[in-house]
Amino acid sequence: MNQLTHLNARGEARMVDVSEKQVTTRTAQACASVRMHATTLQMIVDGDHPKGDVLATARIAGIMAAKKTPELIPLCHPLLLSKVEVTLSPDTNLPGIRILATCKLAGQTGVEMEALTAASVAALTVYDMCKAVDKRMEIEGIRVLEKTGGKSGDWTFET
Amino acid sequence: MNQLTHLNARGEARMVDVSEKQVTTRTAQACASVRMHATTLQMIVDGDHPKGDVLATARIAGIMAAKKTPELIPLCHPLLLSKVEVTLSPDTNLPGIRILATCKLAGQTGVEMEALTAASVAALTVYDMCKAVDKRMEIEGIRVLEKTGGKSGDWTFET
Amino acid sequence: MNQLTHLNARGEARMVDVSEKQVTTRTAQACASVRMHATTLQMIVDGDHPKGDVLATARIAGIMAAKKTPELIPLCHPLLLSKVEVTLSPDTNLPGIRILATCKLAGQTGVEMEALTAASVAALTVYDMCKAVDKRMEIEGIRVLEKTGGKSGDWTFET
Amino acid sequence: MNQLTHLNARGEARMVDVSEKQVTTRTAQACASVRMHATTLQMIVDGDHPKGDVLATARIAGIMAAKKTPELIPLCHPLLLSKVEVTLSPDTNLPGIRILATCKLAGQTGVEMEALTAASVAALTVYDMCKAVDKRMEIEGIRVLEKTGGKSGDWTFET
Amino acid sequence: MNQLTHLNARGEARMVDVSEKQVTTRTAQACASVRMHATTLQMIVDGDHPKGDVLATARIAGIMAAKKTPELIPLCHPLLLSKVEVTLSPDTNLPGIRILATCKLAGQTGVEMEALTAASVAALTVYDMCKAVDKRMEIEGIRVLEKTGGKSGDWTFET
Amino acid sequence: MNQLTHLNARGEARMVDVSEKQVTTRTAQACASVRMHATTLQMIVDGDHPKGDVLATARIAGIMAAKKTPELIPLCHPLLLSKVEVTLSPDTNLPGIRILATCKLAGQTGVEMEALTAASVAALTVYDMCKAVDKRMEIEGIRVLEKTGGKSGDWTFET
Repeated sequence: MNQLTHLNARGEARMVDVSEKQVTTRTAQACASVRMHATTLQMIVDGDHPKGDVLATARIAGIMAAKKTPELIPLCHPLLLSKVEVTLSPDTNLPGIRILATCKLAGQTGVEMEALTAASVAALTVYDMCKAVDKRMEIEGIRVLEKTGGKSGDWTFET
Repeated sequence: MNQLTHLNARGEARMVDVSEKQVTTRTAQACASVRMHATTLQMIVDGDHPKGDVLATARIAGIMAAKKTPELIPLCHPLLLSKVEVTLSPDTNLPGIRILATCKLAGQTGVEMEALTAASVAALTVYDMCKAVDKRMEIEGIRVLEKTGGKSGDWTFET
Repeated sequence: MNQLTHLNARGEARMVDVSEKQVTTRTAQACASVRMHATTLQMIVDGDHPKGDVLATARIAGIMAAKKTPELIPLCHPLLLSKVEVTLSPDTNLPGIRILATCKLAGQTGVEMEALTAASVAALTVYDMCKAVDKRMEIEGIRVLEKTGGKSGDWTFET
Repeated sequence: MNQLTHLNARGEARMVDVSEKQVTTRTAQACASVRMHATTLQMIVDGDHPKGDVLATARIAGIMAAKKTPELIPLCHPLLLSKVEVTLSPDTNLPGIRILATCKLAGQTGVEMEALTAASVAALTVYDMCKAVDKRMEIEGIRVLEKTGGKSGDWTFET
Repeated sequence: MNQLTHLNARGEARMVDVSEKQVTTRTAQACASVRMHATTLQMIVDGDHPKGDVLATARIAGIMAAKKTPELIPLCHPLLLSKVEVTLSPDTNLPGIRILATCKLAGQTGVEMEALTAASVAALTVYDMCKAVDKRMEIEGIRVLEKTGGKSGDWTFET
Repeated sequence: MNQLTHLNARGEARMVDVSEKQVTTRTAQACASVRMHATTLQMIVDGDHPKGDVLATARIAGIMAAKKTPELIPLCHPLLLSKVEVTLSPDTNLPGIRILATCKLAGQTGVEMEALTAASVAALTVYDMCKAVDKRMEIEGIRVLEKTGGKSGDWTFET
């Protein structure tokens, strides 16, 4: 039967014991989007505008945030990420920026939270750098796209 | 004319100079939602289930994250938050949890990023505590609802 | 012969080399108490008072502090805690709150400092939340109750 | 009437609004003790033993921990400490080490928690450096000795 | 008479009391260099190589490090930086990268350590990103170039 | 062919995948120097001056900084240091302080950045504690002296 495993029998939060779980290679991929005004996106994308540094700054912020996950999410285990990659792509249909974060490790717990945190903080950083020109941006669609490894096996979000 | 003020003339990221801005009382309110399966929400809400600690844990995580904003968002200024409040409400129509974060300070920069970060990390914490029972949750609707103070004055998100 | 192993031959602090120590499952349990006025305890415990969040907040603070131990204690090794549990129990005889922290990992060093840090920070958090109503609280009895694993084997504090 | 001000009307934790409180110079002094076996103390104190670095390490750890207080204690406000001093004195009557921490700032909230955190972490650091030779140490007597400034005025712990 | 003010009369480290110092606008500029093989520099600078992200990553790392100064340097006061700017320039004569960091705040202490820390961490980040192709790089010339504000007034490093 | 491995095919920063690399014992030794006025050095070294705490404080700062490396250097992997040692030696010929930092772990990545960060932050701490008496200090000669372990094998900096 399913349970909220982060709570003990008295309903109190705890960091669950993973010491008996197997060490396997685990990956997770998560996404997020920042929806903005078309002219804001244009300002980021434009050839004669500083496209590079908005996306580069958000990419670095996302990577560093993945490493901070156990400091931010109270019941996450500390773990040794072996890979983090964050990509940001302008999408004129949104319009806005689409973010994809991939994390990997050989360990006893999954890395969904690390991928979700990386995507979220990259999105917040885009927001921060554009908020002076666009007050109505919105961050949306933060979810896990797929994960591999671990007892529950591979899984893909199907729409 | 509007500009991406976090970039200098060469398009390089910088933390902008706010030393000439006025110290005023500033507030910001941001929201986020975690959409989940109705039975997951029921599990959090149910009288004989540990409702308290899921929401209490996310609330604390959100408050602590607000204080970490300048560590997470590269170009945010360090600042002295004078108030942080995070509320989480179950919504059976969503179905899921609605989050509201309010920040306040007397200072030279706004606190939108702090409110957005608090709401985002509270949402990620709810996600973390429920992900063993629901792999298809989604975090959405992260945006600023209103802000007061500062040169640009009061502002409310109008839909 | 016993030595203060955290100091080298010149008496200078160092983080000792544990790379030759065996990886074994290690646990440690530590305790702490917050002694307070009986009416302060009553305020925490009372049915119509917010008992939940004082103890829930301290519980989360203790768990998060366990993960911060190598940041706080200069010569502690970074390690991968596989479990942290913190329980807080009102004790009308004290009167006050009794705290118990349990940590576990498979690694090369013991986790006493992590359990002690979790108990201490949980105690400080109780103090913080009650100090407006009781200036004369005192934190006491911070010690290791038992540890298992490692070269020195299992050990229990006997009074 | 007194209240647990860190909780709102629904009993939920929050960081209280201090923006209307006056900026005054505030100080707090807190103490802690590490009780140990007399031979452990002798090892720290002995002329031909590395006395300096045990106490120097704990002193630095205490000072750095004072600055980390708002990261550790969930509802503490970030603040700009203008002074931190930690002293550690061997006491052969205890036997053990007595710790005194003093914090000061001009701000809107008191600095008791900073002084208590500095004293606690200095004590934990002494414990860490001596635990290989003494498993039965105990940290005790963590309390505020006196505070000055703020609305509630000066106050001294009277025994 | 000059003194090492970070030590008290007993020669023990402390965070000195700055509460009586005046709040003035203070700036500091510091520099650092990473000397490398000419072909390594060429690889960073080359049109068809990823110049942008090496320098962009180091720039962000330097800015974020400035904010971490009081966490890294034990006796530095926490402070509210109002501006941080880090520039990195390829110099084929060195050959290598020259780094300039500028910090500013209105406060009671100078910001030399923040500028020096920003320059140092930017240099370490360049080193990290190039070390796979060049093991013999060297970081040198970390010093304060000029400072303004504060009791001691304006000052420029004269060679 | 050599590449800047921290960048992907599009030239974007990433934390490279080390999950296929072998776990071996790895060490690295790095150095740094703080050049200062001879009278400043004399003040640190003098028998009746507080030599101990300047060097002890810098030593602790260096050890703690080694543990913070993945927080500071964006693309460094989190890792479990099994040993950190930092030594500081007065050198009247420089004149100044010479710093040597040694790090060790059993893991999948080298520890050069950890040793370099420890040496750099120890140097910055010496600078901080002496800057009130000597504005013209300079930090120089930060480089890796030798490393062992890993695929590329043992290596020594030869002048």
